[in-house]
Amino acid sequence: MNKTRLEAFSDGVLAIVITIMVLELKVPHGESSVSTLRPLIPVFFSYVLSFIYVGIYWNNHHHLFQVVQRVSGPILWANLHLLFWLSLVPFATGWMGQNNFSTYPVFLYGIVLTGAAIAYFILTIALVSQHGKNSSLAQALGKDFKGKISILLYLAALGAAFLNPAISYALYIGVAIIWLIPDKRMERVLENKKH
Amino acid sequence: MNKTRLEAFSDGVLAIVITIMVLELKVPHGESSVSTLRPLIPVFFSYVLSFIYVGIYWNNHHHLFQVVQRVSGPILWANLHLLFWLSLVPFATGWMGQNNFSTYPVFLYGIVLTGAAIAYFILTIALVSQHGKNSSLAQALGKDFKGKISILLYLAALGAAFLNPAISYALYIGVAIIWLIPDKRMERVLENKKH
Amino acid sequence: MNKTRLEAFSDGVLAIVITIMVLELKVPHGESSVSTLRPLIPVFFSYVLSFIYVGIYWNNHHHLFQVVQRVSGPILWANLHLLFWLSLVPFATGWMGQNNFSTYPVFLYGIVLTGAAIAYFILTIALVSQHGKNSSLAQALGKDFKGKISILLYLAALGAAFLNPAISYALYIGVAIIWLIPDKRMERVLENKKH
Amino acid sequence: MNKTRLEAFSDGVLAIVITIMVLELKVPHGESSVSTLRPLIPVFFSYVLSFIYVGIYWNNHHHLFQVVQRVSGPILWANLHLLFWLSLVPFATGWMGQNNFSTYPVFLYGIVLTGAAIAYFILTIALVSQHGKNSSLAQALGKDFKGKISILLYLAALGAAFLNPAISYALYIGVAIIWLIPDKRMERVLENKKH
Repeated sequence: MNKTRLEAFSDGVLAIVITIMVLELKVPHGESSVSTLRPLIPVFFSYVLSFIYVGIYWNNHHHLFQVVQRVSGPILWANLHLLFWLSLVPFATGWMGQNNFSTYPVFLYGIVLTGAAIAYFILTIALVSQHGKNSSLAQALGKDFKGKISILLYLAALGAAFLNPAISYALYIGVAIIWLIPDKRMERVLENKKH
Repeated sequence: MNKTRLEAFSDGVLAIVITIMVLELKVPHGESSVSTLRPLIPVFFSYVLSFIYVGIYWNNHHHLFQVVQRVSGPILWANLHLLFWLSLVPFATGWMGQNNFSTYPVFLYGIVLTGAAIAYFILTIALVSQHGKNSSLAQALGKDFKGKISILLYLAALGAAFLNPAISYALYIGVAIIWLIPDKRMERVLENKKH
Repeated sequence: MNKTRLEAFSDGVLAIVITIMVLELKVPHGESSVSTLRPLIPVFFSYVLSFIYVGIYWNNHHHLFQVVQRVSGPILWANLHLLFWLSLVPFATGWMGQNNFSTYPVFLYGIVLTGAAIAYFILTIALVSQHGKNSSLAQALGKDFKGKISILLYLAALGAAFLNPAISYALYIGVAIIWLIPDKRMERVLENKKH
Repeated sequence: MNKTRLEAFSDGVLAIVITIMVLELKVPHGESSVSTLRPLIPVFFSYVLSFIYVGIYWNNHHHLFQVVQRVSGPILWANLHLLFWLSLVPFATGWMGQNNFSTYPVFLYGIVLTGAAIAYFILTIALVSQHGKNSSLAQALGKDFKGKISILLYLAALGAAFLNPAISYALYIGVAIIWLIPDKRMERVLENKKH
């Protein structure tokens, strides 16, 4: 089974997820002064964070499937499972933004991020088991240090939400930064394949 | 006529259907405690069920069109007819979730599932009549046992909604499980084609 | 310039237009009886009509671009102009449905359909002027009888809205039926190209 | 890394942005007379302007990536950064329309347009640095006069919003017209490549 439609469908879902989040930024009614926008500031910041996260997932998904050669039924479902968690991001983002980053919304946001990270991990396992341990895909993934450290940091953030949700929020930003730092694993393997 | 745009358009519609359903999970306003989320629990469960159903349809559609070789006007319309029923899933899901799985919403949900199942059946007939009874497509579909049993179970669920909607809901979950069990027909035919 | 992205972008917009219309079918709150759905009946019927219309446009666009060989700046804009009118369909559909097919909403719906029909006509002119009068595209379009009669019937419907909007609605259905009857022009030309 | 998915994802996001803007045109409730639509007139005009702007971006993106040969991590992020600003267009459009083009909404709209213009500029820099100064891409972009003059006019519009927002609005229309005038740079380079 080829991977084109899996990629196209995932791109579609991620494009919609990243775009409908902006609908939580409700157009304010009444007089239009700067102060009208003030209550939207936390909503905006949670939007920016989630935009970056969905961007990271799209980016990683894109890199990952560059080295994928074929897909199977279980891989389609592992991918849908990932999309399921990402589809919950707009809800968690809106709730966190509208409650100004208070405990429960920040906790729920962490649950969704943890779910997505675990789903991504399962997807990579399904792909490696399909391609074999000596495949370029398995090499490209390597020990997946970033993936594992992310899940640990999310779990720390879940606990921290009950002490001070600002710590959790800082951890979410931290994980995003880890991923924004260019990851050479995949690109190196892609380079090697050409030579 | 080639099948690329039919696949792309269907992927687009299914990606949107699966994603806008989450808009029914309205971000709650007011204080943010765990109890704020309680009324959303049935909405969430109806979302999960529908996500799985749309995932199944995307999966089956994907498998089916792997063996399709060419499309025609009637096939385009049979496909749009399927998309029409699936486009009603978000509405039926939202109504069922917000009414905590009571009789009429559960009945309506069953109508939509039955409509989609019949539309899928018509689509396979249109495809077989285009490709011929000896085509690999016709062989891959075989007797389409799962498709037929699904429609019967949906009809049972429609009746059961007036006795106890929980039975209907259990039947909907049952049909989903039938489809989640890997279906070897298509994959076997795809394998054979290569050899 | 190749046509792939124009097709992909149009598919995306049409997929969203056809799907977000269903958001006008607002999930009813309060007790869930059959009567709760009654006010949604006209909304549902206007949804069905618009679904068919957007389906027809997608179908025709698909057929049309099968014989297109290259696109240019003006063609991109002629296509965006068509998408603009089609993007107004959900609004016109919702207004018509929620006002139970009364005069002004039915009139506005006709304006949107007329605009889309004219935009499609302009698109075909731009394509023919690019491909030449002897191209297979020009032959496939022929005299475009259906396109011209549609615009006339829409204009009749616009006038009729002030006498009796039911006549306009019947005319909209009539035009849809004209287009649903298989159109052999394109398919014949496509066949000939192969031989 | 090939550019196909970057194009597909961008097409998806732009298709959704251009389509969900129409959701700001809320279907009016109550009696359906012409006067019901009057408050929607400014919303409609801000929709038309934004539709044209998103159309211009899609068009330019399309032209630009025709000459792109490969993409890299930084280019993916430069592209996501552009999509981020464009994802804010529906919000800014809705606020401007619902407040009848008053100072702050017109100012915010200008901020979003300026952000998108700068993001597009950064994207072109990232692409040129990847392809080299002697690449056909660098030649096609040339001095990017339109890009630079647009940013200057947006900045003028930002200041003008505090004097008279109508001036800003006129400037936004002016920039759109500059871009609607066919741009021969890219098409010339594409032509030359073929010869």
